[in-house]
Amino acid sequence: MAWKIAIDAMGGDKGPAPLIQGALLAAAESGSEIILVGDEHLLAAEMKIHTNGGLPFGIRHAPQVIEMQESPAAAFRKKKAASIRVAVEMVQADEADAVISAGHTGATLMAATLILKTLPGLDRAAIATLLPTMQGHTILIDIGANVDCKPTHLYQFGIMGSAYATHVLQRERPRVGMLSIGEEDNKGNETTKEAFQLLRKSSLNFVGNVEAKAVYRGCADVIVCDGFIGNIALKISESFAEMTESFLKKAFMRDARSRLGYLLLKPSLSHLKHQMDYAEYGGAPLLGVNGTCIIAHGASSAKAIKNAIGLAERLLTHHVNTHIQEDLAANGDIQELNPKKVSLWRHIRGSIPFSRERDDLEPEEPA
Amino acid sequence: MAWKIAIDAMGGDKGPAPLIQGALLAAAESGSEIILVGDEHLLAAEMKIHTNGGLPFGIRHAPQVIEMQESPAAAFRKKKAASIRVAVEMVQADEADAVISAGHTGATLMAATLILKTLPGLDRAAIATLLPTMQGHTILIDIGANVDCKPTHLYQFGIMGSAYATHVLQRERPRVGMLSIGEEDNKGNETTKEAFQLLRKSSLNFVGNVEAKAVYRGCADVIVCDGFIGNIALKISESFAEMTESFLKKAFMRDARSRLGYLLLKPSLSHLKHQMDYAEYGGAPLLGVNGTCIIAHGASSAKAIKNAIGLAERLLTHHVNTHIQEDLAANGDIQELNPKKVSLWRHIRGSIPFSRERDDLEPEEPA
Repeated sequence: MAWKIAIDAMGGDKGPAPLIQGALLAAAESGSEIILVGDEHLLAAEMKIHTNGGLPFGIRHAPQVIEMQESPAAAFRKKKAASIRVAVEMVQADEADAVISAGHTGATLMAATLILKTLPGLDRAAIATLLPTMQGHTILIDIGANVDCKPTHLYQFGIMGSAYATHVLQRERPRVGMLSIGEEDNKGNETTKEAFQLLRKSSLNFVGNVEAKAVYRGCADVIVCDGFIGNIALKISESFAEMTESFLKKAFMRDARSRLGYLLLKPSLSHLKHQMDYAEYGGAPLLGVNGTCIIAHGASSAKAIKNAIGLAERLLTHHVNTHIQEDLAANGDIQELNPKKVSLWRHIRGSIPFSRERDDLEPEEPA
Repeated sequence: MAWKIAIDAMGGDKGPAPLIQGALLAAAESGSEIILVGDEHLLAAEMKIHTNGGLPFGIRHAPQVIEMQESPAAAFRKKKAASIRVAVEMVQADEADAVISAGHTGATLMAATLILKTLPGLDRAAIATLLPTMQGHTILIDIGANVDCKPTHLYQFGIMGSAYATHVLQRERPRVGMLSIGEEDNKGNETTKEAFQLLRKSSLNFVGNVEAKAVYRGCADVIVCDGFIGNIALKISESFAEMTESFLKKAFMRDARSRLGYLLLKPSLSHLKHQMDYAEYGGAPLLGVNGTCIIAHGASSAKAIKNAIGLAERLLTHHVNTHIQEDLAANGDIQELNPKKVSLWRHIRGSIPFSRERDDLEPEEPA
């Protein structure tokens, strides 16, 4: 099915070129309508280089850019015509079905959560990334949208990650695990231990705690964690990969014998690099907002952007947001199990006869 | 200088053999006196295999063992003659200068903190490990002794890590960083942001936040984090290494050409493996206890045990515990800067004339 995709064409470390090239590739494949959001003069000029009278991309003028060093909150308030803000507003106004951003992640998060809001019943949006493992891919959620999480947030990340795994990755009853410091049920910090209880009582296929040493073995389809920890888990893996690559390069160039060995191994190693390439899956969805938003890597290649657009299309085609809401509703009573949240209200309500059905009276947890 | 080192000879995944072999290697090198703690009949029999009338090791009888699946708290209470407990008690009674354990980490932690207690002025002990980086090694502290930390704990980990780096790794004015999700001063979660302020005001060479993506570049000598996060950072790196090794092996065996390339590269790769081998540094000190305690890997080889003993000797020779206390004293007013802790007391005290010097009146922070 074809969709309307808004691209923040001013975001990305490499300027608009790879964004436009990626959009051309995606549109040629899926027939989706692309709207480039940014400075119209600059984009029109750039388009002339890439298309020779070809695909009719829309351009939406948005003359301001949020720079990487700007504070997202201040920039969001001040720059009403920032490309990311205009692109997200198009989704909110139903002028686009999804937004793709390779720009300032904080600004994208801010625009998406403030303009689109979270889906009814969800407290927080979360970024879900795909990690390569020894057995396909694992979803890690959250990787940085939330730095101080409550147990209910982690439980909600489980709901979102499970819907993503089921409907986009086509995993049946995906295994949902909690990132922790030991496999045993009682291992973890205060937050994960409480979230463990919520997830265990849910309808999800919760497989318990997943130790970090087992993450890349692919022992779960979805791994839930707070955004501070998820960000560190992801980025330290990238750091380790960088070091390994640098050490391997040195080993390959150590002497004539090693250099010859490396030459022979080169095709095999390229194949391996392809297997572990982030560009293959393009971007990370910001799940939980009332709309579809993909956060792509700042250094995205045209291929990565094409795949990010493909990911947005799959999220839309499979109605992932609808499934998240269905799963939340099916587990409606779970969040009330959070002992700190319900204690007082439960006690009061428990003493009122016939009040059990009055769930609409339940006070909301303070944000 | 020669020391008396107690080894929990019943701990370790491979039985007492590598522990005894490692102890023999260390004693031959440094002349330290080794006391094997465990079942005396079993150890005497094992000793006969390894020494032919050679080094006179002491044996301290401790017939009980804390098994890996036991709860550390329950086992510690019940098993008064457990080898780890007896070994730690020897340090407490000055019958040994240090204890080495490759057994149950939780039980070692429990025995060390309950029997030796923390150094005066410290709230918590923390495990400091060495990470290989592109520029030598970095100390990561804490990697699992504390799962829910307060800002003052992270500050204290900085003091301990810095003393370790200065006196054992011989780094002048070691750079102390805080593991976080961005380099900017205001990035982090609630705990790290408060700890950031304490560290900045301290006498340490605090270099600010260190992003996870920069950890293996070696941009700091000491990286501070809570034990939940440190454990995940360390273990997910191990997991990534495991996956990379498995993928590389497949790439090396992919076809005849690759296999030949691998054969040529083998010496170079062995050299690389040696560079990244944990056995080279043997173990991780549990810093902050009133004594010297090294936690070695469960699967430690004889070489790893020898190096763990060497590490204990260096901690003792360089009086690291004394330096930690000196650095704490030199930063005596820092912990009072924790706003949540001092607010009320400061307000009261500030209103009493001439009470400024009465620091002995400062109430202790509840544990």
